[in-house]
Amino acid sequence: MPDLLAVPTLSSIQEAADRIQDLVHRTPLLQSTSLNALSGADLYFKCENFQRVGAFKARGAANAVLKLSEEMRQKGVATHSSGNHAAALARAAGSVGIPAYIVMPTSAPEIKKKAVKAYGGEIIFCAPTLEARESTLQEVVERTGATFIPPYDHPDVVEGQGTCALEMWEQEGGFDTIVCPVGGGGLLGGTAIVSKALRPEVRVIAAEPAGADDAFRSFQAKERIPMVGPNTLADGLLTSLGELNFQLLLTHVDDVLTVTDAQIIQAMRLIYERLKIVVEPSCAVPLAAILRYPERFKGQKIGIILSGGNVDLDKLPFRL
Amino acid sequence: MPDLLAVPTLSSIQEAADRIQDLVHRTPLLQSTSLNALSGADLYFKCENFQRVGAFKARGAANAVLKLSEEMRQKGVATHSSGNHAAALARAAGSVGIPAYIVMPTSAPEIKKKAVKAYGGEIIFCAPTLEARESTLQEVVERTGATFIPPYDHPDVVEGQGTCALEMWEQEGGFDTIVCPVGGGGLLGGTAIVSKALRPEVRVIAAEPAGADDAFRSFQAKERIPMVGPNTLADGLLTSLGELNFQLLLTHVDDVLTVTDAQIIQAMRLIYERLKIVVEPSCAVPLAAILRYPERFKGQKIGIILSGGNVDLDKLPFRL
Repeated sequence: MPDLLAVPTLSSIQEAADRIQDLVHRTPLLQSTSLNALSGADLYFKCENFQRVGAFKARGAANAVLKLSEEMRQKGVATHSSGNHAAALARAAGSVGIPAYIVMPTSAPEIKKKAVKAYGGEIIFCAPTLEARESTLQEVVERTGATFIPPYDHPDVVEGQGTCALEMWEQEGGFDTIVCPVGGGGLLGGTAIVSKALRPEVRVIAAEPAGADDAFRSFQAKERIPMVGPNTLADGLLTSLGELNFQLLLTHVDDVLTVTDAQIIQAMRLIYERLKIVVEPSCAVPLAAILRYPERFKGQKIGIILSGGNVDLDKLPFRL
Repeated sequence: MPDLLAVPTLSSIQEAADRIQDLVHRTPLLQSTSLNALSGADLYFKCENFQRVGAFKARGAANAVLKLSEEMRQKGVATHSSGNHAAALARAAGSVGIPAYIVMPTSAPEIKKKAVKAYGGEIIFCAPTLEARESTLQEVVERTGATFIPPYDHPDVVEGQGTCALEMWEQEGGFDTIVCPVGGGGLLGGTAIVSKALRPEVRVIAAEPAGADDAFRSFQAKERIPMVGPNTLADGLLTSLGELNFQLLLTHVDDVLTVTDAQIIQAMRLIYERLKIVVEPSCAVPLAAILRYPERFKGQKIGIILSGGNVDLDKLPFRL
């Protein structure tokens, strides 16, 4: 288990940014006149869809890999994931020449398997259950001595994800509000730490699909309530908030807003039409929240984290 | 009729760039490691999908409007178009506070009508035939005294479109080859003038849908052969090459390559997947040509003009 007390700070996130700079892109911050008019606010979109491996996950994975001791590096890294973290970890490990063992359900999409292999990762298949994933991972770690790098609930991962917001503040300061999607909470945690440290009066808002609203319910109840049976097209946000990230939510986040899938699709369409960029449904959740509760955002300068662009083009939700 | 002898030059295009700079965006030049690997070339994509009104047409329209005499400005501008040029001209005219009269077939898409109105243009509807468009435009010009700004076959329009390639050469010089889509030929003409002036040994290649291949046939025959019954999903490239632009093709362009709609869809998918940007089908024609004839491009540094991003999201051609 990672040391949950080793919580990242602004300065540790600044160090992470230096550490990972050769392994990640500095992504652009985009604006749209028409989206500003529509929202009545001044919106800045931080485009992690242009990040390496197509998502912010490249940052946390790179940071975790580069923080390993020389001895740990020799034995490589391992994780269980069928999503962006798998590709990100395989790529980070490959770029420093160490093995990455990725436990994936046999049912994972072909394109995800291909991506991991293309980056030089070794896939270990398991049955498509959480138990099988965990026990297979355990076996792999015991056999290889590899270090387990979890997808979100780990200080080094949160620290890496925080470099995204750090860049955004460097590119354009003075935000009144930051809106960030929340799934496992690694991106949100890092974003909140950086933003509150740089400008204590900033509001940090988490945006979440109503069909996977464990952060909303946990925030209200002040205790972590894991998600059971999530149901949303925002497939990057299905996971439950981690323990470390729940603590960061309570400490640094001002509110959690939820949106329906219909609102997510509408916001996603606006991003495609107005910003002319390809994003995954999870990315549209913050804009959907701003458009659902306009009175909470009007007249403000707002930073929005667009988390990634790995979407199945055959299943875009636009066709009527 | 415009004076077809008043052919734009590198220096007139440089002046145009200064003239229009407050009305257009300086668009980014993107690269993709995986598209480089796939093509075996070093590809730079000039992203006019991020241009104002979503297409390079903003450049030519702005230049034509800003070159009007004070007296001509008073009476406004007119055109017939149901596409990007209509919105671009309405916006350029609106931004200097003069009227824009846009003749459009009643059958034009609702979204195009809305865009023109949003920019303050006045729409005059006509029957959906070329004859009706031309006679209605004639009436409007006689009634209002407005100056007709055609969509592509006009020196000021070509000059404005040339500012796109000029920016690309400023952002990253030393290209071996430039690949540009061709419809009416305004973008191609401006691109070719700039590129050959800056680097005489550069190859300028026009890329065209096989279903609207009048530039290809005209280039082979060395006489202008207008298109009859074009049939391609690249709806920005249906029009025939203009007279001025045909002369520019013969003078400055090294070859015309055609691609099928299936190849256009494949290239369009790659742009969405790898560059994570939204482009219209016409944009994918140059990449499709590069992938169809790889041996002609291998090992080269290539500038590709992506013309625009106004695509109907309900009709994306990806779903299987």
